[in-house]
Amino acid sequence: MNLDPLLKPCSIAVVGASDNPKRIGGVPVDLLIRAGFEKLYPVNPKNETVQGLKAYPDIESVPEVVDLVIMALSADATLPYLERCHARGIPAALVYAAGYAETNEAEGIARQDALVDFANRTGMRIAGPNAMGNANFTDAIFTSFGQSFQPGEPAGDCALVTQSGNMCATLFRTARRAGVTFSHVINTGNEAGIELSDYLDYLAGDPNTASAVCYIEELRDGPKFLQAAARFRAAGKLLAVFKVGASEKGAEATRSHTAALAGDAAAYDAAFARAGVARAGELTGLADLAYLHTLGERIGGSNCAILSISGAAGAILADALALNGAQVPTLPGDVQEALADQIPGHSMVSNPIDMTGNIVNDNEFVTECIRLALSPEDIDLLLLYMPGQFLANAQEQVERAAAASGKAIIVVDTFAMADRERLAAHGIGCFEDFDRAARAVCAYGQWKKAGARAPAALSASAAWPAFPAGRTALSETEAKQALAAFGVSVVQDALVQDREDLREAADFVGYPLVAKLVSPDIAHKTEHGLIRLNLSNADAVAEAFDEMMDKAQSMPGVRIEGVTLEPMLSGGVEILAGVTRDPVFGWLLTVGMGGVWTELMKDACHSLLPVDAGGAERMLRSLKGFRLLDGYRGAPKADVAAAARAIAALGDAVLAGGDALREVEINPLLVLPKGQGAVAVDALVLLNAESQSEVEEPA
Amino acid sequence: MNLDPLLKPCSIAVVGASDNPKRIGGVPVDLLIRAGFEKLYPVNPKNETVQGLKAYPDIESVPEVVDLVIMALSADATLPYLERCHARGIPAALVYAAGYAETNEAEGIARQDALVDFANRTGMRIAGPNAMGNANFTDAIFTSFGQSFQPGEPAGDCALVTQSGNMCATLFRTARRAGVTFSHVINTGNEAGIELSDYLDYLAGDPNTASAVCYIEELRDGPKFLQAAARFRAAGKLLAVFKVGASEKGAEATRSHTAALAGDAAAYDAAFARAGVARAGELTGLADLAYLHTLGERIGGSNCAILSISGAAGAILADALALNGAQVPTLPGDVQEALADQIPGHSMVSNPIDMTGNIVNDNEFVTECIRLALSPEDIDLLLLYMPGQFLANAQEQVERAAAASGKAIIVVDTFAMADRERLAAHGIGCFEDFDRAARAVCAYGQWKKAGARAPAALSASAAWPAFPAGRTALSETEAKQALAAFGVSVVQDALVQDREDLREAADFVGYPLVAKLVSPDIAHKTEHGLIRLNLSNADAVAEAFDEMMDKAQSMPGVRIEGVTLEPMLSGGVEILAGVTRDPVFGWLLTVGMGGVWTELMKDACHSLLPVDAGGAERMLRSLKGFRLLDGYRGAPKADVAAAARAIAALGDAVLAGGDALREVEINPLLVLPKGQGAVAVDALVLLNAESQSEVEEPA
Repeated sequence: MNLDPLLKPCSIAVVGASDNPKRIGGVPVDLLIRAGFEKLYPVNPKNETVQGLKAYPDIESVPEVVDLVIMALSADATLPYLERCHARGIPAALVYAAGYAETNEAEGIARQDALVDFANRTGMRIAGPNAMGNANFTDAIFTSFGQSFQPGEPAGDCALVTQSGNMCATLFRTARRAGVTFSHVINTGNEAGIELSDYLDYLAGDPNTASAVCYIEELRDGPKFLQAAARFRAAGKLLAVFKVGASEKGAEATRSHTAALAGDAAAYDAAFARAGVARAGELTGLADLAYLHTLGERIGGSNCAILSISGAAGAILADALALNGAQVPTLPGDVQEALADQIPGHSMVSNPIDMTGNIVNDNEFVTECIRLALSPEDIDLLLLYMPGQFLANAQEQVERAAAASGKAIIVVDTFAMADRERLAAHGIGCFEDFDRAARAVCAYGQWKKAGARAPAALSASAAWPAFPAGRTALSETEAKQALAAFGVSVVQDALVQDREDLREAADFVGYPLVAKLVSPDIAHKTEHGLIRLNLSNADAVAEAFDEMMDKAQSMPGVRIEGVTLEPMLSGGVEILAGVTRDPVFGWLLTVGMGGVWTELMKDACHSLLPVDAGGAERMLRSLKGFRLLDGYRGAPKADVAAAARAIAALGDAVLAGGDALREVEINPLLVLPKGQGAVAVDALVLLNAESQSEVEEPA
Repeated sequence: MNLDPLLKPCSIAVVGASDNPKRIGGVPVDLLIRAGFEKLYPVNPKNETVQGLKAYPDIESVPEVVDLVIMALSADATLPYLERCHARGIPAALVYAAGYAETNEAEGIARQDALVDFANRTGMRIAGPNAMGNANFTDAIFTSFGQSFQPGEPAGDCALVTQSGNMCATLFRTARRAGVTFSHVINTGNEAGIELSDYLDYLAGDPNTASAVCYIEELRDGPKFLQAAARFRAAGKLLAVFKVGASEKGAEATRSHTAALAGDAAAYDAAFARAGVARAGELTGLADLAYLHTLGERIGGSNCAILSISGAAGAILADALALNGAQVPTLPGDVQEALADQIPGHSMVSNPIDMTGNIVNDNEFVTECIRLALSPEDIDLLLLYMPGQFLANAQEQVERAAAASGKAIIVVDTFAMADRERLAAHGIGCFEDFDRAARAVCAYGQWKKAGARAPAALSASAAWPAFPAGRTALSETEAKQALAAFGVSVVQDALVQDREDLREAADFVGYPLVAKLVSPDIAHKTEHGLIRLNLSNADAVAEAFDEMMDKAQSMPGVRIEGVTLEPMLSGGVEILAGVTRDPVFGWLLTVGMGGVWTELMKDACHSLLPVDAGGAERMLRSLKGFRLLDGYRGAPKADVAAAARAIAALGDAVLAGGDALREVEINPLLVLPKGQGAVAVDALVLLNAESQSEVEEPA
């Protein structure tokens, strides 16, 4: 979407313009006048002039078709006036008024729906409603009714995009304190017309924007966000996000004032990972990521050297970096020896490096210590603890080292006395807090290192059978057959409906075997005693058959399709793989160890589809329980590659099935010893009844 | 230890006093003169005067026996001079010099050992060496060579105790920025004489100290720390700690410059929990805890109400509080209704409460909103998001609410514009960052709520058998017999040494059974194939006996005591309980689910001994895997009470065994269905060879 008329307008009308520069309709007029914006047309039927400018009685009398109309009217008056603006050919509007979907009331929701309809019908680009407005520092255009963004602020290349006006102001102030300067500040409001991902898409192509930091409550269109993020990566621009709603109460609070879909937290995590965005765990972290991006070309990753005048500070930084997932590699022996030669007395040189308080007697060796600490190829940057006077006394030495190295130096000054501007001029970063520094360095370094993986190509190797109308689930046998067509190995089974066929089927499958009742209406068969393990002879099979059929026949409204017999497999490790549909991002794949592990320990990994076998193997290896697959306590190593292929095939199957599917799970997927494969012992396929002609709920 | 001569001296001599107020020997003279300290005696044989005061050529010529001598001499010169000070009857000394154990060199370590010997021999109270000195703001006594602590700073009731001079200055500045004022600032240095816990013990009894915040690298004497912490709690004083060394690299860096014992991180966690101290996860958190303690009487716990002018801020705070373990309870219906009546328009009132931007039109309802939000009994405090001008405009309304309530109000002002002093004068706290506020509120509230549990009384119900000299382990049978004497139920077994006795023993135990090889020299029997499960007849038992004996006889240097037969128990849930000895804190009890859970998932809980059955049950319930004991997926509930009694009995047994023991473990402890008890299936007792007359290492 071309947002130039909104974000880079050549002419602006303010409808509801006020003569009072403190009122909502007066602030943007005041800001734009002070910014020297020329083609500004206040619209106010009651005044001859507004803040010294000629006022126009209505939009029709404004002498040109403006790029942007700022609507400072009440919610009720807004839509009728927008129709008039559209009739004049105005391409973009910014709506300040509240009283829409954020009220959570029928009246407000109806107002927003009408606005959405209007935007869809006319193609007019509508920002808001309930939006604070924006600031374009590059071109000095201020359309906000907030006072935080003033003409005269230096322009920069970071864009700030938030779904909350207040967090917009908070982040702007926090980042400005750190020294970040901005190209655009954008508050998306209720996103009736233009949504966050539209702004990101625009900014990805904005030559004046090198990074964007986003406060996100909910995304309306997951795929659109992923596309915008991909454009950021392709352009080498930083996209950093903070997402609120990780806790139940936080999510509840978020949803109460957004009209967006409620996506799953795991899906957001998976989507952000897939998108390759940098992730801040705290709001201030967004400002810190924007700040670090100003040193971005010097930062290659998050392998850190720590150089400190205090052993304590070195240890604290090492802890904080490790906690946040960075590495503090032990330096090579020759580098350690060279450092030991430089530093008076004996101290730790392995990394962290302790220069000790001896620095007060001699600063000269600091330059060489920094050079040495940054010299190993696997060191991405240096954290330098030199608070207050220690840095002031050795600043030239540090600056010389920065000039000589292409890698980043980040000073930590817990005394908060450093001259940040002078440091910035030499390409040196500065934090006042150990943990904020560590969090930012880790998140930024990880972003820099991890290229977003290109989604795997969809193999679409097979097709699903036609689903009978009204079915909401496949039987286990049907489910396994369908998945087998996509390349998932499944346990061979025999379905027995008549007791007389039992012995022949059991001989075909072989002993020991497992007998399971088959019904589309019973999900948790173990708990109902409808799975019998390790049956070793014909009598045991017959007894199990009779008992399970009796039990199932006693359950009301349950359809019985028979009993399957399967070989009782021994050895191997059970894992599970399932795909559910997230309302924002679509298919979400979950991989975990056997049920108890996933349920009690939350030891699961999520990813958006598609996932290829390589991606599936990375998911398995990220599990805490992976060691169970990797030859734990002398057991044979499991066939991880086969498991990964089966998981990838599951994902392909789900993508091929599309909207007809609701959920597909293989549980357990039995991973046999290496070379013996991985087989789906049980599978569940739930169908999306709505996509079928007849709908019937299970009993 | 009475530290008045060190921390509250009436007279001070400075040996090595310098005329230059910037030099190490000059700083304390300068500070003390400026603080108006009267009985100050510079000792310097080369000068007639020092900074305008008469100088004395040596300690012997100082006209009175001073309380404290500050030693500003080199490391080599220090000890001989201390002997002279002791000869004059001076009770306390502060040693600035470095060059002791922190160097990690033999020479320095020997110097420190000599200093320790001197302190032990003479009883002289020695602070340091390698200490920066202290500041007593209450009495305006400055003994530091650092410039961070200046006369004229306001005195307060927080004590700062650190094991690093630099963190001392960092914390002091951070806390002062928050508005905290101090009674004492203490840097412990190398702790050759007086250690951190001695200072804490003194401060617990100091009437001018209401709280202490500690930066800790390593503790030298765990029990002494626990005693000092208990005195803090008994006096209603806050003791807050930050411990460095959580990561491998952090611990390595810490140990390289302390001469203390290396305690286990889990033991520190257990000790801090037992001690009932407040725990900061970040260094700045210590300053924030000290700051919150100034509002302490208003804060009852960490159940928070959130009142905000921004739905986003409410959600962010709810997330941050939940992440850190606080609660955001849903408000009662009548309170919600009353809030909805107060707040213009419709917004969220369940908690978080969203006042919306309507506050700009009317501030008056803020007072009543605060009253309502704090009215439910289960709400401990209010987090109030009103940044910048929003607070400035409604400050009187907030102050009226604070005056009317005994509970705490914590303002979060992300615009960093609040008048903190004015707020403090009204008993209102203020943070500028969502997450720092949440971390501090949670840690402080949890400390306030959790009374340290009094250690359980030791029942000492039995005694251990005499351990034969030279043994380093008991056999499984011996171990289970010994634990049974303390009340642990154990699996009845029969030890068979002669193949001819096998059938009779098996008939006695009953089929199916488990056979295990018994040897004091083999720890992991499963991995060696020396445990055979589910043997269902005499032939199977005989075959297992032969194979295991052959296998064991082929292992070099292994003593074989025979094979035990035990009943093969079915049902029940396996857990483990073990006790190891931490060098700092003594016995550390670990409780976890079966081996894989504890090893791969780190799902274990630790506690210092003693632990009674109630404490053991709390440990079990804190495990993620506890649901496996609690009737998971339709299984019968396990006998948790019996398991807890067995764990407590294990603890009692270990305490009774004392120094003769090295490690005792029950693994597995099989917890049977409720009412059927919990039995130790296997037990390991390792003996402390050093405490016995003859020492013999296992083969």
